[in-house]
Amino acid sequence: MTTILRGNLIHAPALGQLECLPGGYLILEDGVIAALCSRLPEQYQNSPVIDYGDALILQSFADCHLHAPQYPMVGTGMDVTLLDWLQKYAFPTESRFVDGAYARQVYHALARELVDNGTTRVIMFSSLHTDATLILMDELEQAGLWGYVGKVNMDRNGTPQLQETTEESQRETLRWLDACGQFHHIKPILTPRFTPSCTDALMAWLGRTAAERGLYIQSHLSENDREIAWVRELHPDCQRYWESYAKYGLWADHTVMAHCVHSDAQERLAMREANVLCVHCPDSNINVRSGLAPVRTMLNEGNWVALGSDIAGGDHLHMMDVITAAVRTSKLRSLLIDGSEPLTAADGYYLGTTAGHRYFGAGAGFAVGDALHAIVVDDSGIDTMGNMNFTDRLERALYRAKSEQIVAVWAGGKQIK
Amino acid sequence: MTTILRGNLIHAPALGQLECLPGGYLILEDGVIAALCSRLPEQYQNSPVIDYGDALILQSFADCHLHAPQYPMVGTGMDVTLLDWLQKYAFPTESRFVDGAYARQVYHALARELVDNGTTRVIMFSSLHTDATLILMDELEQAGLWGYVGKVNMDRNGTPQLQETTEESQRETLRWLDACGQFHHIKPILTPRFTPSCTDALMAWLGRTAAERGLYIQSHLSENDREIAWVRELHPDCQRYWESYAKYGLWADHTVMAHCVHSDAQERLAMREANVLCVHCPDSNINVRSGLAPVRTMLNEGNWVALGSDIAGGDHLHMMDVITAAVRTSKLRSLLIDGSEPLTAADGYYLGTTAGHRYFGAGAGFAVGDALHAIVVDDSGIDTMGNMNFTDRLERALYRAKSEQIVAVWAGGKQIK
Repeated sequence: MTTILRGNLIHAPALGQLECLPGGYLILEDGVIAALCSRLPEQYQNSPVIDYGDALILQSFADCHLHAPQYPMVGTGMDVTLLDWLQKYAFPTESRFVDGAYARQVYHALARELVDNGTTRVIMFSSLHTDATLILMDELEQAGLWGYVGKVNMDRNGTPQLQETTEESQRETLRWLDACGQFHHIKPILTPRFTPSCTDALMAWLGRTAAERGLYIQSHLSENDREIAWVRELHPDCQRYWESYAKYGLWADHTVMAHCVHSDAQERLAMREANVLCVHCPDSNINVRSGLAPVRTMLNEGNWVALGSDIAGGDHLHMMDVITAAVRTSKLRSLLIDGSEPLTAADGYYLGTTAGHRYFGAGAGFAVGDALHAIVVDDSGIDTMGNMNFTDRLERALYRAKSEQIVAVWAGGKQIK
Repeated sequence: MTTILRGNLIHAPALGQLECLPGGYLILEDGVIAALCSRLPEQYQNSPVIDYGDALILQSFADCHLHAPQYPMVGTGMDVTLLDWLQKYAFPTESRFVDGAYARQVYHALARELVDNGTTRVIMFSSLHTDATLILMDELEQAGLWGYVGKVNMDRNGTPQLQETTEESQRETLRWLDACGQFHHIKPILTPRFTPSCTDALMAWLGRTAAERGLYIQSHLSENDREIAWVRELHPDCQRYWESYAKYGLWADHTVMAHCVHSDAQERLAMREANVLCVHCPDSNINVRSGLAPVRTMLNEGNWVALGSDIAGGDHLHMMDVITAAVRTSKLRSLLIDGSEPLTAADGYYLGTTAGHRYFGAGAGFAVGDALHAIVVDDSGIDTMGNMNFTDRLERALYRAKSEQIVAVWAGGKQIK
């Protein structure tokens, strides 16, 4: 079936590069992009067109790191640092997800808010609870989202209410993986919480399981000084944090590592060599006082970097806020640390869209052959200037648009808002 | 007339100090706070009560620095630094306010958005246009806001479209001041844009006019390194930026100085000695790459500090966003510069409310004898936790609440939303 969308197309085929097609056409065949064009080709002259008028048609967002069970506590507990924050706020909140009804209520609301804000792909942590994780996957799938979701593994340094034995962690992981076949566009990803949360035995088992089953892995890396020192104590044989994953086979193609605030040149090289995705979470890194990640440096070196809201260390689920936070953070990095070139709005848009969608095998920008992931932004309600060019309108949308300006959302070729 | 509001009262009588009255009563006589109480006193048992149920009744916000004519460009031009930003974006945008119809449209929208977001008092820059300034004051007054508004003076270093002669600046300032008597709760404040924008003759005239007419003064101070160097070139006799105001009588009780990012101990002392209000604008200072102001240090030293959105250097008009930006900024200041104690959510709430309302003669928190400035926040729509204490609910509101959660706004004892 042919579907044609018309509007002001703005996409990011490469870092720092925007392509605008004012009043352009997106031609879909069964939800898959067949062509982008400035004029409607002859053969489609009689096809119906969904005309979005003067609205912007942008790429939808990929949120590549967030903790679903921390959604209820967004915007609380912001006055402490990472390790205290985990013990006092995050772990007690996550432990409530032993209750399936509570999980259903929270995850339904989370899925709705993601869609409302134009996020269509996620790479996400659940809690350690198998049943709640399946509920989360179900809610995301029902909302039309695409993603990777991980039941968390943690068999040490949790709380009495939030910890598994090694055996439980393995058994529950297998039970969870066996149940994931029911989902079509939400896939499992192995999720050791972070090195301090997993015994060596569990890490080794996860590495073997990833290899045997062809699963991707997500975790945290070099977020905070105290955390890094702790990992060094736990793994005195590892020169750097990443090696505590690598030695168990958890450092592989498409491994996702959140934060990398303090990753040095060696660790960044190891990421490039393995094709590890670094997820930059600017809000979270400031809220829990971790620091300013060297994003421009990583990009210049050729690292693969995308963005994450990291709720509830981060306080904004809306990826437009995360994009502008990344821009702001890069300005401070430049000013206070290393003089690196700040991210532009176009850079941020690329990191929040194309760079994350790539994890799912998508091409660059609105690429022919990809199922459509897009949002439609009606910026007339935030326009008091008139006559702005399209790159300024994109920038203004990133800074100013709320969910109400996002009037349509397409995911996997279907309209989900 | 007696009016009684009931709800969960949370106010900030002092820095870092919250007072909560769950299910408390605010008793107003002709809009003025007569009492705060946990139980309704006997004499009011038969008075009607406006019952806000489980909602939070908070202090409204005071936005102590913003540029009204830059409202149309919020969220654009964020990829350049201060002086370029002024020439390329801010000045061309402001020059459009020669058109009264345009001014009416923009200022009407601005006033509405301020009210919607719970800001009830402002200290504001207009442009240099007398008529547009009067339109702005009219729109603010009609919306029920309270504030100080300044016609900008700038007789050098502007653009051909946005500059006055010294004589014009004086004549138009007098014409504007003469017309301000028509307003009841919007007052004039003298507004030399910043030292580089005003000749010595104009500065001297403004200082004399302030003294003769008993007017307050607002301007910018020590925002950006290049700006500071420029002021030093223009006034080689001044050791520090503030002296370029002081030597013309523009450094006085209730002078408002935005930014003070780079104010050293001497300049901070000069502020305390004169009772100058420093307005911290965290978003703006990062967006235009000025730096991180030493807010905790200023507070510890006893300086008077309030908050400003500083649109359009800042990109958030909603003061809750400015408050959380101030908290984040203070964390980075602590982490990267001086180890100072970060601001807490309670500190931020105080700076965005009590500290700014004080400029208008208000007492601390919900003070008996003050006309009510308050907002009512219905946080049920952002609640997926249940059973939270009131300080956590305040923090979550600051991070999460949008205008739709602000279900009522009171200003000067009257409900304006």
